[in-house]
Amino acid sequence: MKQDDATLQFDENGNLRHLLSLKGIDATLLTDLLDAAEGYLTTPGALPARSQSLAGRTIGNLFFEPSTRTRASFDLAGRRLGADVLNLDVNTSSRKKGESILDTIYTLEAMQVDIMVVRDASDGVPAYIARNVKDHVSVLNAGESDISHPTQGLLDLLTIRQHNPDFKNLVVAIVGDIQHSRVAMSASEALQTMGVGELRLISPPALAPDSSRFPGTRIADNLKDGLKDADVVMALRIQRERIGNLDGVPGIDEYFANFGVSHESMKYAKPDAIVMHPGPMNRGIEIEGSLADGPSSVVTKQVTNGVAVRMAVLDRIGKIMSAR
Amino acid sequence: MKQDDATLQFDENGNLRHLLSLKGIDATLLTDLLDAAEGYLTTPGALPARSQSLAGRTIGNLFFEPSTRTRASFDLAGRRLGADVLNLDVNTSSRKKGESILDTIYTLEAMQVDIMVVRDASDGVPAYIARNVKDHVSVLNAGESDISHPTQGLLDLLTIRQHNPDFKNLVVAIVGDIQHSRVAMSASEALQTMGVGELRLISPPALAPDSSRFPGTRIADNLKDGLKDADVVMALRIQRERIGNLDGVPGIDEYFANFGVSHESMKYAKPDAIVMHPGPMNRGIEIEGSLADGPSSVVTKQVTNGVAVRMAVLDRIGKIMSAR
Amino acid sequence: MKQDDATLQFDENGNLRHLLSLKGIDATLLTDLLDAAEGYLTTPGALPARSQSLAGRTIGNLFFEPSTRTRASFDLAGRRLGADVLNLDVNTSSRKKGESILDTIYTLEAMQVDIMVVRDASDGVPAYIARNVKDHVSVLNAGESDISHPTQGLLDLLTIRQHNPDFKNLVVAIVGDIQHSRVAMSASEALQTMGVGELRLISPPALAPDSSRFPGTRIADNLKDGLKDADVVMALRIQRERIGNLDGVPGIDEYFANFGVSHESMKYAKPDAIVMHPGPMNRGIEIEGSLADGPSSVVTKQVTNGVAVRMAVLDRIGKIMSAR
Repeated sequence: MKQDDATLQFDENGNLRHLLSLKGIDATLLTDLLDAAEGYLTTPGALPARSQSLAGRTIGNLFFEPSTRTRASFDLAGRRLGADVLNLDVNTSSRKKGESILDTIYTLEAMQVDIMVVRDASDGVPAYIARNVKDHVSVLNAGESDISHPTQGLLDLLTIRQHNPDFKNLVVAIVGDIQHSRVAMSASEALQTMGVGELRLISPPALAPDSSRFPGTRIADNLKDGLKDADVVMALRIQRERIGNLDGVPGIDEYFANFGVSHESMKYAKPDAIVMHPGPMNRGIEIEGSLADGPSSVVTKQVTNGVAVRMAVLDRIGKIMSAR
Repeated sequence: MKQDDATLQFDENGNLRHLLSLKGIDATLLTDLLDAAEGYLTTPGALPARSQSLAGRTIGNLFFEPSTRTRASFDLAGRRLGADVLNLDVNTSSRKKGESILDTIYTLEAMQVDIMVVRDASDGVPAYIARNVKDHVSVLNAGESDISHPTQGLLDLLTIRQHNPDFKNLVVAIVGDIQHSRVAMSASEALQTMGVGELRLISPPALAPDSSRFPGTRIADNLKDGLKDADVVMALRIQRERIGNLDGVPGIDEYFANFGVSHESMKYAKPDAIVMHPGPMNRGIEIEGSLADGPSSVVTKQVTNGVAVRMAVLDRIGKIMSAR
Repeated sequence: MKQDDATLQFDENGNLRHLLSLKGIDATLLTDLLDAAEGYLTTPGALPARSQSLAGRTIGNLFFEPSTRTRASFDLAGRRLGADVLNLDVNTSSRKKGESILDTIYTLEAMQVDIMVVRDASDGVPAYIARNVKDHVSVLNAGESDISHPTQGLLDLLTIRQHNPDFKNLVVAIVGDIQHSRVAMSASEALQTMGVGELRLISPPALAPDSSRFPGTRIADNLKDGLKDADVVMALRIQRERIGNLDGVPGIDEYFANFGVSHESMKYAKPDAIVMHPGPMNRGIEIEGSLADGPSSVVTKQVTNGVAVRMAVLDRIGKIMSAR
């Protein structure tokens, strides 16, 4: 993302208009969004929180990459705020007809779809759309190439805060395919804004990130160093097709032994450390199944928080929209 | 289904919590559900019956096998009770990413999807899910391998009761590929619970069921014996790929001549007998088109009853859920 | 369409029941529908117009051809009138199982889907369905082969009227693959009913229409003659696969040079002429991108009008339905 993309997110009054990246979202705004999200959490079994704050608005879910969970999460978040949600299966129809992305966007705008939720495999697509929409339209990035997934970053931040709000004294370790991970990028941006004590990125050397993309982090190539006294351990999904095929990336068994987040490797971390994963999980590869289902795992809490942070973002953007 | 799956359907107070099979659903409960379903029937052209009994609840439609009609039926049933319905196209996204079924379920639970409607081609998937969900979550079987399709059984039972509520004196004949039919299984379970006079299963020998799966029924290999004085004749869909290919299964013309439910073969049945089919129909193979469109056919009534029984089940389960 | 299909659209009291074609829709009714559609237009950024006039009704979107924009337009139009909209992905499920179109329709009818929105690649499918549905059911043609797309015709008519309501003195030019264009057919029918001054159809000879299908129009084979002093210029989408492959159809560059609606070719038209396109556009083939984005373009206005005319049609049909 170019430097000015961070400022592109705000309108002329400094209000959040688009959510493209967590870069440029300061600690106050992050905290406000997490606080608002907390307000949408209810006890399991209770009816989900609802409001009518987006009643009459239309949200377009444009997923140019397949997705079940993030799409469903945005869908439910929008509906629980009273919005109409239009799910567009973009791959199978207009792209077949060769329509450009902007023409799809202009079409939706003309149908009074005012909030566009966009996932795309290419760099810069959400910002490109944000630069081209009308003044009253907002764009939410729902996953962009390997560089940004801001609502995931928010839900991760909320989940960590629920464990321990004292970010300055926390050690957070992210393990796996850092190089290709928009999840790691957004989490890193958010955590550093909150002044996290230490952020460590652990991966096989072949999947290590360009360190300039993650300033202020510590890069490790083994779990022993990386997880030492960690408060939070986040395992990342690894694409199966990369395992054993990419030069320097070991096969499944060796990957699990060396980089799997497991009961064994969690011994390096603090006794009360939590285990996170953005899902969908490859059990037995990047995470041990019984650990994911155990008491230290907050994996399903992350999902619950995901709906809540998306409601918080949608609600905030919708209110600013209505005030214009 | 293992014996205890029938009891798995009830909560600790004996209330219906999951609907996995009609085995274990007693005559009183069957009758209650049919009575409730009757309350959702309106005259053609009138607005469909609606309520807000599931307002605020979220239903997840998880169809791991493709389906138009059953999925649409559950979708409308849920929406007409005020629920949010999330249709998940499971094949094309998370399974691509290799997520396990349980992780999909845990994700939906965490999004406060409290009712899971599941169709799957494998034995035991709905019960497996029911065993693993949280206490406040219910699972409805929308078609499971060749063994269970309980809401289909309920709609068939309702349709038969509308014709003649005196089950004890009814002769019901089911014709076709009994061996692979979850429709026949669920209908058989429900009819036997209601004390049906006689239940006959008619098929080419190659498609005859294991008789132990259908206790108390009479198995026939020809329409003349099977349809004699029948009050109700239910034709089953036969997979086209089985016709003429499976050892002992005749080609289309011969199949229709010998096992097709037709004006000709209906002469064996009672003059006022009704003709049923679960759809989608192969006209000219297992059923004669003009018979399906004629006055003795209750095929579209079955569809209408399908929405009504699904509303009855959802409403009952939702009320029990809210009372917990 | 057979002659009597036009009358099939009206019920015994002369009220619009189905919308199959703009043939047979007189100037009064066209005007009423456009006036009603105007009532659904709001300023950009405002919430879209809504009503509850279809509350409790169910609309089925049956798209047997893929579509994003028309489907989304009908979906939003229906929901903004309070209806439940059922989107059926017909290709991927029931057609796989070999169900006939009529059986799909009978199934939806039985589920109390009272308005069927149908797109199909074959001639006569919407009328065929309209002839076979129950008395209380309405059918809307959302695109039929190369012969009819009546809501597109209405939105084009509305867009032209917004530019200049004096149809009798207007010159309208349609450019492109007229031969295969349901858009041109419906626009032509509507414009001629309104007594348009002159309607010109411009295409390479290989894509020229059978002139008997477009009575009262002038057929031209070059832009200079065709666009001369035109008030309205409508570019049609050309299927990429036809370009350069069809005998007599030039390659992309030559097509654009000779039949592309561009700043250059618009010099033939009146200075204040508007540029239309039904979308999705092939920029640089049938239309110059910068022209489509320029001040003379009403392309996105057409999209907005599309939702409004569909609301107008749905509302009118729903009210007649409720009055029966």
